[in-house]
Amino acid sequence: MFTLNSQVKLADTDAAGILFYANYFRLAHDGYESFLEAIDYSLNYVINESDILILIVHTEADYKQSLRLGVNYTLQIKVDKIGKTSFALNYRFEDSNSQIVAVIKTIHVTVSKGKNKPVKLPEKLRDKLTQYT
Amino acid sequence: MFTLNSQVKLADTDAAGILFYANYFRLAHDGYESFLEAIDYSLNYVINESDILILIVHTEADYKQSLRLGVNYTLQIKVDKIGKTSFALNYRFEDSNSQIVAVIKTIHVTVSKGKNKPVKLPEKLRDKLTQYT
Amino acid sequence: MFTLNSQVKLADTDAAGILFYANYFRLAHDGYESFLEAIDYSLNYVINESDILILIVHTEADYKQSLRLGVNYTLQIKVDKIGKTSFALNYRFEDSNSQIVAVIKTIHVTVSKGKNKPVKLPEKLRDKLTQYT
Amino acid sequence: MFTLNSQVKLADTDAAGILFYANYFRLAHDGYESFLEAIDYSLNYVINESDILILIVHTEADYKQSLRLGVNYTLQIKVDKIGKTSFALNYRFEDSNSQIVAVIKTIHVTVSKGKNKPVKLPEKLRDKLTQYT
Repeated sequence: MFTLNSQVKLADTDAAGILFYANYFRLAHDGYESFLEAIDYSLNYVINESDILILIVHTEADYKQSLRLGVNYTLQIKVDKIGKTSFALNYRFEDSNSQIVAVIKTIHVTVSKGKNKPVKLPEKLRDKLTQYT
Repeated sequence: MFTLNSQVKLADTDAAGILFYANYFRLAHDGYESFLEAIDYSLNYVINESDILILIVHTEADYKQSLRLGVNYTLQIKVDKIGKTSFALNYRFEDSNSQIVAVIKTIHVTVSKGKNKPVKLPEKLRDKLTQYT
Repeated sequence: MFTLNSQVKLADTDAAGILFYANYFRLAHDGYESFLEAIDYSLNYVINESDILILIVHTEADYKQSLRLGVNYTLQIKVDKIGKTSFALNYRFEDSNSQIVAVIKTIHVTVSKGKNKPVKLPEKLRDKLTQYT
Repeated sequence: MFTLNSQVKLADTDAAGILFYANYFRLAHDGYESFLEAIDYSLNYVINESDILILIVHTEADYKQSLRLGVNYTLQIKVDKIGKTSFALNYRFEDSNSQIVAVIKTIHVTVSKGKNKPVKLPEKLRDKLTQYT
């Protein structure tokens, strides 16, 4: 499991006083990028140097509580599934009392650059992901 | 069906050159607010004047294509389901060739302000939603 | 003068209940893109087809009032100055009572792609901008 | 001086491949909130508990370089000026080679809640700010 600690900023919130529902996806992706970097497979490398792209084809979120301005929270990322040409991630937002606030899932497909066709997960990426299942 | 025409702005895009996955949720919500206003049940009224809140408890998205900077697209919103204390919306993003780019679903629960307990959909809201099923 | 009518969306606001200060710049840029398209010089064309880039080198904002969720506002854009290799735009946000809410300025420099050196404003762009001074 | 280390995330960038000009203001404000917390005067306290609000009445940015996806940068915040009812902050974004990327200024006015009239900076806030001039 990959864990990040963060805090709700004003830009994350909306006029209802809570973290705006769409911003969970932005924050999850920020975490995803930190995760990719931690497994030495940075998004920058993927986009600018590798011969694949990792596309998000599906995502979903369940909102159980809300987060208010200034509140500390934890984002835990783990690998849910690893397929031939895809993988699924699970993101759990917890408040400072370890209460689940929201859970996000993302499904990622690796495609060849240019042709945009699904290709097998690169060996190295698969190995690294396996460590976080 | 409620339809909006729009265009991909630079702020919507990311370094991959396409509309960032989380921004579909922001744009869907923008559309949802226009829809609520069209049925005379504005979010501003809900948050500041009514005795209920309409919470998003679940959302999901399927991404089928991508949208690039400057591209025109259509957002179509319709009501998927109406329950006792909840309703579900469907948002379809189509490019200018009527190709589906992305589909989003949101599930909304009406709760009493303060207590945060599910309450029956207000009659008027239910009636209006019914017109868009 | 180039004018757009819009409405404050939930995603624009923050926990203080008002349009978040940084979002004025996003909305101004959305307007700038519509303006560029109106003068047949779309940002998409600039980024992907022309041999120049138009860089923002300076921006500033004065906030005089605030805008709340659901409020209608007008964004008026005009050209402040046209230089040899640069131009300045002025954006005025007005509420529905024609009260000035915020004023933004942006200074844009045209540079050659690759070398990133200032180059003369393309004739056509200069001509079009002149119509909005 | 208050210093934060960060990294450019995909959500910060745009189709030009660089950190979107408006997002510097979001990131500066994120830093401002961390700064306020560091001086024990959190924005959450200000908005929800104190009898003042701290309004941003002016901001400006100079962009000297750009920041690309995945790049590490430093944000340095210092207090530029302290007035009777206002203060000014300076934010300097530097890349990993200590090159200045962008400089932002914000001017903040303390007003009474409700009446929205300028009031003297609270003693404690003034004292803390003084330590960062």
